[in-house]
Amino acid sequence: MRSGISPREALTLILEHATPLGLETVALPDSQGRVLAEPVRSERFLPPADNSAMDGYAVVARDLAGASSERPITLPLAYEIPAGSQPPRPLKSGETARILTGAPVPEGADAVVRQEDTEASANEIAFHLDPPLGDNIRHMGEDVRAGDQVLSAGTKLGPAELGMLASLGRGFVAVHQRPRVAILSGGDELVEPDGDITGGRIVSSNSYSIAAQCRDVGCEPLYLGIARDTPGDIESRLRGGLAADVLVSSAGVSVGDRDYVRDVLEKLGCRLEFWGVKMKPGYPLAFGHFPESEGRGPLVFGLPGNPVSAVMTFEQFVRPALRKLTGHRRLHRPLLGVTLAETLKKKPGRLHFVRVILRREGEQVFAQSTGNQSSGVLRSLCEAQALLIFPAEASELLAGERATVQVLDESFLESDDPGF
Amino acid sequence: MRSGISPREALTLILEHATPLGLETVALPDSQGRVLAEPVRSERFLPPADNSAMDGYAVVARDLAGASSERPITLPLAYEIPAGSQPPRPLKSGETARILTGAPVPEGADAVVRQEDTEASANEIAFHLDPPLGDNIRHMGEDVRAGDQVLSAGTKLGPAELGMLASLGRGFVAVHQRPRVAILSGGDELVEPDGDITGGRIVSSNSYSIAAQCRDVGCEPLYLGIARDTPGDIESRLRGGLAADVLVSSAGVSVGDRDYVRDVLEKLGCRLEFWGVKMKPGYPLAFGHFPESEGRGPLVFGLPGNPVSAVMTFEQFVRPALRKLTGHRRLHRPLLGVTLAETLKKKPGRLHFVRVILRREGEQVFAQSTGNQSSGVLRSLCEAQALLIFPAEASELLAGERATVQVLDESFLESDDPGF
Repeated sequence: MRSGISPREALTLILEHATPLGLETVALPDSQGRVLAEPVRSERFLPPADNSAMDGYAVVARDLAGASSERPITLPLAYEIPAGSQPPRPLKSGETARILTGAPVPEGADAVVRQEDTEASANEIAFHLDPPLGDNIRHMGEDVRAGDQVLSAGTKLGPAELGMLASLGRGFVAVHQRPRVAILSGGDELVEPDGDITGGRIVSSNSYSIAAQCRDVGCEPLYLGIARDTPGDIESRLRGGLAADVLVSSAGVSVGDRDYVRDVLEKLGCRLEFWGVKMKPGYPLAFGHFPESEGRGPLVFGLPGNPVSAVMTFEQFVRPALRKLTGHRRLHRPLLGVTLAETLKKKPGRLHFVRVILRREGEQVFAQSTGNQSSGVLRSLCEAQALLIFPAEASELLAGERATVQVLDESFLESDDPGF
Repeated sequence: MRSGISPREALTLILEHATPLGLETVALPDSQGRVLAEPVRSERFLPPADNSAMDGYAVVARDLAGASSERPITLPLAYEIPAGSQPPRPLKSGETARILTGAPVPEGADAVVRQEDTEASANEIAFHLDPPLGDNIRHMGEDVRAGDQVLSAGTKLGPAELGMLASLGRGFVAVHQRPRVAILSGGDELVEPDGDITGGRIVSSNSYSIAAQCRDVGCEPLYLGIARDTPGDIESRLRGGLAADVLVSSAGVSVGDRDYVRDVLEKLGCRLEFWGVKMKPGYPLAFGHFPESEGRGPLVFGLPGNPVSAVMTFEQFVRPALRKLTGHRRLHRPLLGVTLAETLKKKPGRLHFVRVILRREGEQVFAQSTGNQSSGVLRSLCEAQALLIFPAEASELLAGERATVQVLDESFLESDDPGF
């Protein structure tokens, strides 16, 4: 087992062991937010036939050569084509047909004139313009042709894609399975939120933040509860998570006297790849996996117990792994170049993720620390909109210097203004 | 009823009628993604007592004055304090206590020395350094003090907030209700995705994309099905949606011969505020509401029937309204300044939302049209990462000019790179 590796080495090792999960077939509305596991080809033309883009009249364009509002041309009304019905016969030169939006254009017709550009009387229609060929006609296959690949594997399915799949008649779709993430909490000092906190006990809040982080990336959390500090309780709870795709212990896999999690994991066949990443907060992170010879087992993350460290190491390492398992191609948060609003200092050696608040001024974005960066201070993480990357070997970033942040809080990106 | 208003006027009118929904109390895990309806104050100190940030030894700092690895100072081990237990008695000068991470620091002690800086033998501990006062102690109330307002009303609840609420012992939390959105589809030419499309019938795909757009902003879609083109069927279906918060008809509220939706809505007591917005795609948008004298009724949107127009008008008008109902403060998509990769032209008069693909080059982002901007072409919306705002009165935007886009596709913002 390696120790004291860089965040980049840790991430590379983890992602090597994270391979996209297999496919499952789900009903169309349930596919939202999922990642397509197979390319989708169309068996249809969309639109299926030339159809009208407007409520109006189908015509043979050359019949209206020279028509204008001053010199309208009048044609007899031959028949009507509501949407959802077929023209009774082809349109002949010298006649017109009433047509509604979406209705098929009759054979012979080559333009549609909008209702607004006509005047109807009894069985005759007066046309006030000379339409260009093909006007107001949506052509068969304009959107999609039979045989086209419409969506590629790896596409995240959103509203437009669901609409498209419905149009193709796809009621079911193959997507990557959602990772199931078993979460173990542990420690004799921990209670659930409704528990008794007298005597210095504290709420096991990490399991709630971690479960929320799982749901945020479309994964299903499976909470194994709070293990007491005994090898027996830890083992029986961990066994409950072995069928999951990922196992996250916020109990800590550490060097402490009563940290039995590591021993139990190794007993169960888990091979630990590393313990300890040169970052702050979050040094005591462990990662392991079950060798294939042992049959498939979950990827195992031992997160630090401090609330901030737990959320931050999940963010940096578990989240990209979950996104990879889910079939996503881009695994990481938006990055943004910012200007430091204050000077930051640290000892060289570890990469720091500094919780910052962002402030826009014109085209520039300024980053300011949320204050107390102690790993116990969850409040600073609620306030943080981004994590500023303070490189390992640097000891000072001066006010006014440029730096890179990972944007955590989509609300920073949202706008007060529609832009129009 | 007004007609032919600008997108800005339409949005203003709509948002005037959208007021945040009342509160509901939900279990903590169910509050994820919801908007807090009340400020949250803490009744607790976090941490609840001074506690150790490390596994190590609690000491009276001045006992170790001058200690170093060359000249260690040795203290007798008085007792041990595991996490989750209380010290048996105060620590006296001249002795030390074993302490684990998170365990309460005993009265009398004023520093913790990390295990790595000590050497243990039998009942004595040799200390290799002279610790600063308070070293490795997390102080009571460092994160939160009793009485502090920790989260304000209007906060969107994410992982850090759920962790914080758990820490405060809050198993339940008051959030704004989720809007229920009734969706009506309509037209004799429409079938469900598994339906028979012979004879020019097409799938009612709008109901699927609109339902997905609703779920994307945390709202609950309620699908009223496909109404046939008869006043009776439309009325009976619409009545099923009157208890919802928002009613979206993708059946069209238009001037077409068989567009009965408008008549039925007015019969049911809906007051239509406008029909027709000077934009493209999406002109035939209608908005109405039920006057308070009629009792509370849904906000009513009649979207255009074309797939692209339906998604785009939802995006511009229904989405911000739903976000306002849900309690959000920022209602709109991220805006981004871009450089045009090609010249765009149009007739002046209507604001165009141009579907574009974005491409980063260094610090600049270039926008290129997805091609065919016909409102029938849903495929171009699947490809689009953003909507470029082509102002109403403009007729030309030149390649190289700056413009504003609304970013639709969060994947454009995601990164291939962790930034470290």
